[in-house]
Amino acid sequence: MKTAIIGLGLIGGSFALSLKDKGLSDHIWGVEQSERNAQKALELGLVERICTLDEALAECKLIVLATPVDTIPKLAIKILNRIRPDQILMDMGSTKQELCEMTMMHPNRGRLVASHPMWGTENSGPEAALHGAFKGRTVVICNCEQSDQDALQVVEDIYRELQMPILHMSAEDQDMHCAYISHISHITSFALALTVLEKEREEEHIFDLAGGGFESTVRLAKSLPQTWAPIFLENKYNVLDVLREHIHQLQILRRMIERDDREGLMEAMQRANKIREILK
Amino acid sequence: MKTAIIGLGLIGGSFALSLKDKGLSDHIWGVEQSERNAQKALELGLVERICTLDEALAECKLIVLATPVDTIPKLAIKILNRIRPDQILMDMGSTKQELCEMTMMHPNRGRLVASHPMWGTENSGPEAALHGAFKGRTVVICNCEQSDQDALQVVEDIYRELQMPILHMSAEDQDMHCAYISHISHITSFALALTVLEKEREEEHIFDLAGGGFESTVRLAKSLPQTWAPIFLENKYNVLDVLREHIHQLQILRRMIERDDREGLMEAMQRANKIREILK
Repeated sequence: MKTAIIGLGLIGGSFALSLKDKGLSDHIWGVEQSERNAQKALELGLVERICTLDEALAECKLIVLATPVDTIPKLAIKILNRIRPDQILMDMGSTKQELCEMTMMHPNRGRLVASHPMWGTENSGPEAALHGAFKGRTVVICNCEQSDQDALQVVEDIYRELQMPILHMSAEDQDMHCAYISHISHITSFALALTVLEKEREEEHIFDLAGGGFESTVRLAKSLPQTWAPIFLENKYNVLDVLREHIHQLQILRRMIERDDREGLMEAMQRANKIREILK
Repeated sequence: MKTAIIGLGLIGGSFALSLKDKGLSDHIWGVEQSERNAQKALELGLVERICTLDEALAECKLIVLATPVDTIPKLAIKILNRIRPDQILMDMGSTKQELCEMTMMHPNRGRLVASHPMWGTENSGPEAALHGAFKGRTVVICNCEQSDQDALQVVEDIYRELQMPILHMSAEDQDMHCAYISHISHITSFALALTVLEKEREEEHIFDLAGGGFESTVRLAKSLPQTWAPIFLENKYNVLDVLREHIHQLQILRRMIERDDREGLMEAMQRANKIREILK
């Protein structure tokens, strides 16, 4: 099988490595707007060659969209317009409602498999691509009843080979759950970095004093704005809903600290501790 | 040198291991209120024996306070009341203003070295103690001009042996910087866990979908309320100040998302990205 990956950043690059490492694709080509990233991806051996979208459509059985989420629906439509019945389009974006809505009536909708592998790091670009990145992570496949059976089969077989548990979900549910579990973490982390940069004018103190706790909560603030601004905006209503709740929880904690309400604080933190059981 | 460690949790237990591993103390005793933790610490070989505070004061040259921060000032005064001129008291708490203020006029203040090693994990109790925990982490020593030269020397030599860079700071400065860099991370993480537990009623989805990003931002929410409630309250004014700024930053991001202000979001996130250069 010949594969084209559109967007050779962290996700596309890591997917290329996974396909290659598992022998799931004989030839992996890349489509990449950025000259620098294209060059880097070739140097790193992520892809065999860089091609145009036209070449990808002419030659490849599997086409993978791994670009920022705001570009995915448009690209998907343009590709579906020209896709052959033996070809498969999949995406790897973090939001799904817009994509599924934009393509729902497309006569070739069946060739699309809308998926979201739950993996990422704060790093970006082809040089951030990792071997074995997706192993053990859940992948969400959305509105799978709209995908052709054969297309779904191919994509699910790939994810299974990568040892990823598959979860089926509506695009609406996936975007809501991801707002809770992924997108809010990024917003919090960005806001925390801005807070500390705002308050802590003496930068060497941040460096000297930052313990492991700070580094882990602020890690996601290193993430690429080009990736995350589109995610927050595409998933606007869910993100705003969770953000409202998060600010509310912070205000409750603030009020308890103001009032020296030790008992209230202890009780809230004990409730928060429950996350330990859920995560392990 | 015979050492007594008061409080055999994560910090006290790890310090015991470090002293032993580096051969810095011939005998390490422990003082521990909790029967369970005392037993566990013995089983794990963190300390040679459990003793009373009286025994510690009679026999040990170095006495280490590693209990929750709200108990440290009182314990410090009681110990300073009875300390001999050849004995040294040090603490390892995360806040310092209250301790330094409560002890500043004590005739034996010189025997106290107020220190804060910048290390911790979300785990607690003697079983959370780790070998080599403090290595490479900064330790802050506060108001060192109030410590006797010989006492300061002994404590700094220990931290140097543990390969910890030493930073001297006033108690006021240390509490302010730690609010920015450590305490706020914990509050954010607790609030994030509460948000997700509140919104995400279907717990198996948290478990299935939580990627690495969520786990790292919410990790600190597993921390012990008995440790952290006192820290937030002892450092109340600094913590409230940073918390106010953090909520403000979240509200700015929220407003930008509401207004589809992609440019504003990108610019804010690019500013937040600066944390990458500072941390590495």
